[in-house]
Amino acid sequence: MDDFRLDSRLESDSLPVCDLPLCQVRLMNDARFPWLVLIPRRPGIREVFELSSSDQVQLWHEATEVGRVMKDATQGDKLNLATLGNVVAQLHLHVIVRKTDDAAWPAPVWGHGEARSYDLEGQAAMRDLVLAQIQGLDLG
Amino acid sequence: MDDFRLDSRLESDSLPVCDLPLCQVRLMNDARFPWLVLIPRRPGIREVFELSSSDQVQLWHEATEVGRVMKDATQGDKLNLATLGNVVAQLHLHVIVRKTDDAAWPAPVWGHGEARSYDLEGQAAMRDLVLAQIQGLDLG
Repeated sequence: MDDFRLDSRLESDSLPVCDLPLCQVRLMNDARFPWLVLIPRRPGIREVFELSSSDQVQLWHEATEVGRVMKDATQGDKLNLATLGNVVAQLHLHVIVRKTDDAAWPAPVWGHGEARSYDLEGQAAMRDLVLAQIQGLDLG
Repeated sequence: MDDFRLDSRLESDSLPVCDLPLCQVRLMNDARFPWLVLIPRRPGIREVFELSSSDQVQLWHEATEVGRVMKDATQGDKLNLATLGNVVAQLHLHVIVRKTDDAAWPAPVWGHGEARSYDLEGQAAMRDLVLAQIQGLDLG
Protein backbone atom coordinates (compact mmCIF):
# COMPACT_ATOMS: atom_id res chain seq x y z
CA MET A 1 0.00 0.00 0.00
CA ASP A 2 1.12 3.52 -0.80
CA ASP A 3 2.05 5.62 2.21
CA PHE A 4 1.29 9.28 2.54
CA ARG A 5 4.38 11.42 2.13
CA LEU A 6 4.41 15.19 2.34
CA ASP A 7 5.52 17.05 -0.78
CA SER A 8 9.04 18.44 -0.30
CA ARG A 9 8.08 21.96 -1.40
CA LEU A 10 5.22 22.07 1.12
CA GLU A 11 7.60 20.77 3.76
CA SER A 12 10.17 23.51 3.15
CA ASP A 13 7.63 26.35 2.87
CA SER A 14 5.67 25.54 6.03
CA LEU A 15 5.99 24.41 9.63
CA PRO A 16 4.22 21.42 11.19
CA VAL A 17 1.44 22.20 13.68
CA CYS A 18 -0.69 19.11 14.32
CA ASP A 19 -2.77 16.36 12.74
CA LEU A 20 -6.56 16.51 12.47
CA PRO A 21 -8.60 13.36 11.75
CA LEU A 22 -7.93 13.75 8.01
CA CYS A 23 -5.44 16.54 7.45
CA GLN A 24 -2.00 17.52 8.52
CA VAL A 25 -2.07 21.18 9.57
CA ARG A 26 0.94 23.30 8.70
CA LEU A 27 1.75 26.96 9.20
CA MET A 28 3.02 28.75 6.11
CA ASN A 29 6.32 30.39 6.96
CA ASP A 30 5.09 33.88 6.09
CA ALA A 31 4.47 36.10 9.10
CA ARG A 32 2.55 38.64 7.00
CA PHE A 33 -0.63 36.54 7.19
CA PRO A 34 -2.22 33.98 9.53
CA TRP A 35 -1.91 31.31 6.84
CA LEU A 36 -2.40 27.59 7.34
CA VAL A 37 -2.25 24.75 4.87
CA LEU A 38 -4.27 21.55 5.35
CA ILE A 39 -3.02 18.44 3.59
CA PRO A 40 -5.22 15.31 3.58
CA ARG A 41 -3.05 12.40 4.69
CA ARG A 42 -3.97 10.27 1.70
CA PRO A 43 -1.35 9.18 -0.83
CA GLY A 44 -1.43 10.20 -4.48
CA ILE A 45 -4.27 12.73 -4.31
CA ARG A 46 -4.19 15.84 -6.50
CA GLU A 47 -7.83 16.90 -6.73
CA VAL A 48 -10.59 17.12 -4.13
CA PHE A 49 -12.79 14.85 -6.24
CA GLU A 50 -10.20 12.07 -6.01
CA LEU A 51 -10.94 11.78 -2.28
CA SER A 52 -13.78 9.52 -1.12
CA SER A 53 -17.08 11.31 -0.48
CA SER A 54 -16.64 11.11 3.27
CA ASP A 55 -13.07 12.43 3.05
CA GLN A 56 -14.33 15.34 0.93
CA VAL A 57 -16.87 16.27 3.59
CA GLN A 58 -14.23 15.92 6.30
CA LEU A 59 -11.72 18.06 4.40
CA TRP A 60 -14.08 21.00 4.01
CA HIS A 61 -15.33 20.58 7.56
CA GLU A 62 -11.81 20.73 8.98
CA ALA A 63 -10.86 23.70 6.79
CA THR A 64 -14.03 25.67 7.53
CA GLU A 65 -13.87 25.09 11.28
CA VAL A 66 -10.15 25.84 11.54
CA GLY A 67 -10.71 28.95 9.44
CA ARG A 68 -13.61 30.08 11.60
CA VAL A 69 -11.70 29.89 14.90
CA MET A 70 -8.53 31.35 13.38
CA LYS A 71 -10.42 34.33 11.94
CA ASP A 72 -11.95 34.92 15.34
CA ALA A 73 -8.68 34.50 17.26
CA THR A 74 -6.77 36.88 14.99
CA GLN A 75 -9.56 39.44 14.60
CA GLY A 76 -9.59 38.87 10.87
CA ASP A 77 -11.88 40.54 8.36
CA LYS A 78 -12.23 37.75 5.79
CA LEU A 79 -11.43 34.12 5.39
CA ASN A 80 -9.84 32.87 2.17
CA LEU A 81 -10.14 29.14 1.45
CA ALA A 82 -8.53 27.79 -1.67
CA THR A 83 -7.13 24.72 -3.30
CA LEU A 84 -5.01 25.69 -6.28
CA GLY A 85 -2.09 23.30 -6.62
CA ASN A 86 -0.70 24.76 -9.82
CA VAL A 87 2.84 24.57 -8.45
CA VAL A 88 2.63 21.80 -5.83
CA ALA A 89 0.46 19.01 -7.20
CA GLN A 90 -0.22 17.25 -3.89
CA LEU A 91 -3.71 18.25 -2.71
CA HIS A 92 -3.48 21.01 -0.12
CA LEU A 93 -5.96 23.56 1.05
CA HIS A 94 -5.03 27.11 1.98
CA VAL A 95 -6.79 28.63 4.99
CA ILE A 96 -5.83 32.28 5.21
CA VAL A 97 -7.16 34.97 7.50
CA ARG A 98 -7.17 38.31 5.74
CA LYS A 99 -7.24 41.79 7.20
CA THR A 100 -8.16 44.93 5.32
CA ASP A 101 -4.75 46.39 6.22
CA ASP A 102 -2.63 43.32 5.42
CA ALA A 103 0.26 43.35 2.96
CA ALA A 104 -1.74 42.12 -0.03
CA TRP A 105 -5.33 43.26 0.60
CA PRO A 106 -7.57 43.06 -1.37
CA ALA A 107 -5.45 40.95 -3.74
CA PRO A 108 -4.92 37.24 -3.11
CA VAL A 109 -1.78 36.43 -1.14
CA TRP A 110 -0.12 34.14 -3.66
CA GLY A 111 2.79 35.68 -5.52
CA HIS A 112 2.35 38.98 -3.71
CA GLY A 113 5.72 40.35 -2.61
CA GLU A 114 8.19 38.32 -0.61
CA ALA A 115 7.31 36.00 2.25
CA ARG A 116 8.50 37.25 5.65
CA SER A 117 9.81 34.26 7.61
CA TYR A 118 8.80 33.90 11.24
CA ASP A 119 11.47 34.36 13.87
CA LEU A 120 11.54 31.57 16.45
CA GLU A 121 9.46 33.49 18.95
CA GLY A 122 6.83 34.51 16.44
CA GLN A 123 6.65 31.00 15.07
CA ALA A 124 6.15 29.50 18.54
CA ALA A 125 3.50 32.09 19.41
CA MET A 126 1.51 31.47 16.24
CA ARG A 127 1.81 27.71 16.58
CA ASP A 128 0.56 27.92 20.17
CA LEU A 129 -2.34 30.10 19.08
CA VAL A 130 -3.36 27.66 16.35
CA LEU A 131 -3.09 24.67 18.67
CA ALA A 132 -5.16 26.36 21.35
CA GLN A 133 -7.88 27.20 18.82
CA ILE A 134 -7.96 23.75 17.26
CA GLN A 135 -8.05 22.02 20.64
CA GLY A 136 -11.54 23.33 21.26
CA LEU A 137 -12.95 21.97 18.00
CA ASP A 138 -14.96 18.81 17.58
CA LEU A 139 -13.72 17.44 14.26
CA GLY A 140 -14.14 13.71 14.87
CA MET B 1 -37.62 37.57 5.74
CA ASP B 2 -34.56 38.63 3.81
CA ASP B 3 -34.51 37.63 0.17
CA PHE B 4 -31.42 36.52 -1.67
CA ARG B 5 -30.17 39.18 -4.03
CA LEU B 6 -27.11 38.81 -6.23
CA ASP B 7 -24.30 41.29 -5.62
CA SER B 8 -24.20 43.88 -8.42
CA ARG B 9 -20.49 43.42 -9.11
CA LEU B 10 -20.93 39.65 -9.50
CA GLU B 11 -23.89 40.34 -11.76
CA SER B 12 -21.90 42.60 -14.07
CA ASP B 13 -18.78 40.40 -14.18
CA SER B 14 -20.54 37.12 -14.96
CA LEU B 15 -23.33 35.54 -16.98
CA PRO B 16 -26.17 33.43 -15.59
CA VAL B 17 -26.09 29.71 -16.35
CA CYS B 18 -28.47 27.81 -14.08
CA ASP B 19 -29.51 27.11 -10.50
CA LEU B 20 -28.35 24.06 -8.55
CA PRO B 21 -30.16 22.97 -5.36
CA LEU B 22 -28.16 25.51 -3.33
CA CYS B 23 -26.14 27.69 -5.66
CA GLN B 24 -26.65 29.95 -8.61
CA VAL B 25 -24.09 29.03 -11.26
CA ARG B 26 -22.60 31.88 -13.27
CA LEU B 27 -19.96 32.01 -15.99
CA MET B 28 -17.25 34.62 -15.45
CA ASN B 29 -17.07 36.80 -18.51
CA ASP B 30 -13.44 35.98 -19.20
CA ALA B 31 -12.89 33.68 -22.16
CA ARG B 32 -9.27 32.99 -21.15
CA PHE B 33 -10.37 30.38 -18.60
CA PRO B 34 -13.29 27.98 -18.05
CA TRP B 35 -14.30 29.88 -14.92
CA LEU B 36 -17.54 29.48 -13.02
CA VAL B 37 -18.74 31.14 -9.85
CA LEU B 38 -21.19 29.43 -7.49
CA ILE B 39 -23.23 31.66 -5.22
CA PRO B 40 -25.33 30.06 -2.46
CA ARG B 41 -28.83 31.49 -2.71
CA ARG B 42 -28.93 32.49 0.94
CA PRO B 43 -29.24 36.13 1.99
CA GLY B 44 -26.60 37.95 3.97
CA ILE B 45 -23.88 35.28 3.90
CA ARG B 46 -20.21 36.30 3.68
CA GLU B 47 -18.35 33.29 5.04
CA VAL B 48 -18.78 29.55 4.49
CA PHE B 49 -19.12 29.00 8.24
CA GLU B 50 -22.18 31.26 8.31
CA LEU B 51 -24.07 28.66 6.28
CA SER B 52 -25.86 25.82 8.07
CA SER B 53 -23.87 22.58 8.29
CA SER B 54 -25.98 20.94 5.60
CA ASP B 55 -25.62 23.96 3.31
CA GLN B 56 -21.85 23.82 3.79
CA VAL B 57 -21.75 20.20 2.72
CA GLN B 58 -24.00 20.98 -0.24
CA LEU B 59 -21.87 23.95 -1.33
CA TRP B 60 -18.66 21.94 -1.50
CA HIS B 61 -20.45 19.02 -3.09
CA GLU B 62 -21.85 21.20 -5.86
CA ALA B 63 -18.51 22.95 -6.42
CA THR B 64 -16.47 19.75 -6.45
CA GLU B 65 -18.82 17.91 -8.79
CA VAL B 66 -19.20 20.84 -11.18
CA GLY B 67 -15.43 21.27 -11.16
CA ARG B 68 -14.86 17.60 -11.82
CA VAL B 69 -17.07 17.44 -14.91
CA MET B 70 -15.86 20.79 -16.22
CA LYS B 71 -12.21 19.77 -15.90
CA ASP B 72 -13.02 16.62 -17.81
CA ALA B 73 -15.07 18.35 -20.50
CA THR B 74 -12.43 21.00 -21.17
CA GLN B 75 -9.42 18.67 -20.90
CA GLY B 76 -8.07 20.71 -18.01
CA ASP B 77 -4.90 20.00 -16.07
CA LYS B 78 -5.89 21.29 -12.63
CA LEU B 79 -8.95 22.46 -10.78
CA ASN B 80 -8.79 25.61 -8.68
CA LEU B 81 -11.51 26.03 -6.03
CA ALA B 82 -11.51 29.17 -3.95
CA THR B 83 -13.62 31.44 -1.86
CA LEU B 84 -11.85 34.76 -1.38
CA GLY B 85 -14.39 37.57 -1.26
CA ASN B 86 -11.94 40.35 -0.53
CA VAL B 87 -13.60 42.59 -3.10
CA VAL B 88 -17.16 41.21 -3.31
CA ALA B 89 -18.31 40.34 0.20
CA GLN B 90 -21.24 38.11 -0.80
CA LEU B 91 -20.15 34.48 -0.45
CA HIS B 92 -19.16 33.08 -3.83
CA LEU B 93 -16.99 30.17 -4.79
CA HIS B 94 -14.69 30.19 -7.78
CA VAL B 95 -14.48 26.98 -9.82
CA ILE B 96 -11.74 27.40 -12.40
CA VAL B 97 -10.28 24.85 -14.78
CA ARG B 98 -6.61 25.52 -15.36
CA LYS B 99 -4.40 24.43 -18.20
CA THR B 100 -0.62 24.43 -18.15
CA ASP B 101 -0.64 26.70 -21.21
CA ASP B 102 -3.33 29.14 -20.06
CA ALA B 103 -2.80 32.90 -19.80
CA ALA B 104 -1.90 32.91 -16.10
CA TRP B 105 -0.39 29.47 -15.39
CA PRO B 106 0.95 28.66 -12.83
CA ALA B 107 -0.16 31.88 -11.11
CA PRO B 108 -3.71 32.26 -9.79
CA VAL B 109 -6.11 33.90 -12.25
CA TRP B 110 -7.20 36.82 -10.10
CA GLY B 111 -5.70 40.15 -11.07
CA HIS B 112 -3.71 38.56 -13.87
CA GLY B 113 -3.89 40.70 -17.01
CA GLU B 114 -7.17 41.85 -18.50
CA ALA B 115 -10.31 39.75 -18.79
CA ARG B 116 -11.20 38.84 -22.37
CA SER B 117 -14.97 39.10 -22.75
CA TYR B 118 -16.82 36.32 -24.56
CA ASP B 119 -18.36 37.12 -27.92
CA LEU B 120 -21.98 36.00 -28.22
CA GLU B 121 -21.11 32.76 -29.97
CA GLY B 122 -18.39 31.82 -27.50
CA GLN B 123 -20.62 32.66 -24.58
CA ALA B 124 -23.45 30.50 -25.91
CA ALA B 125 -21.07 27.62 -26.62
CA MET B 126 -19.57 27.69 -23.13
CA ARG B 127 -22.96 28.04 -21.49
CA ASP B 128 -24.24 25.03 -23.46
CA LEU B 129 -21.19 23.03 -22.46
CA VAL B 130 -21.65 23.83 -18.78
CA LEU B 131 -25.36 23.03 -18.89
CA ALA B 132 -24.74 19.72 -20.65
CA GLN B 133 -22.17 18.74 -18.04
CA ILE B 134 -24.29 19.76 -15.07
CA GLN B 135 -27.37 18.01 -16.42
CA GLY B 136 -25.72 14.63 -15.84
CA LEU B 137 -24.95 15.31 -12.18
CA ASP B 138 -26.92 14.08 -9.20
CA LEU B 139 -26.75 17.01 -6.80
CA GLY B 140 -30.06 16.62 -5.00
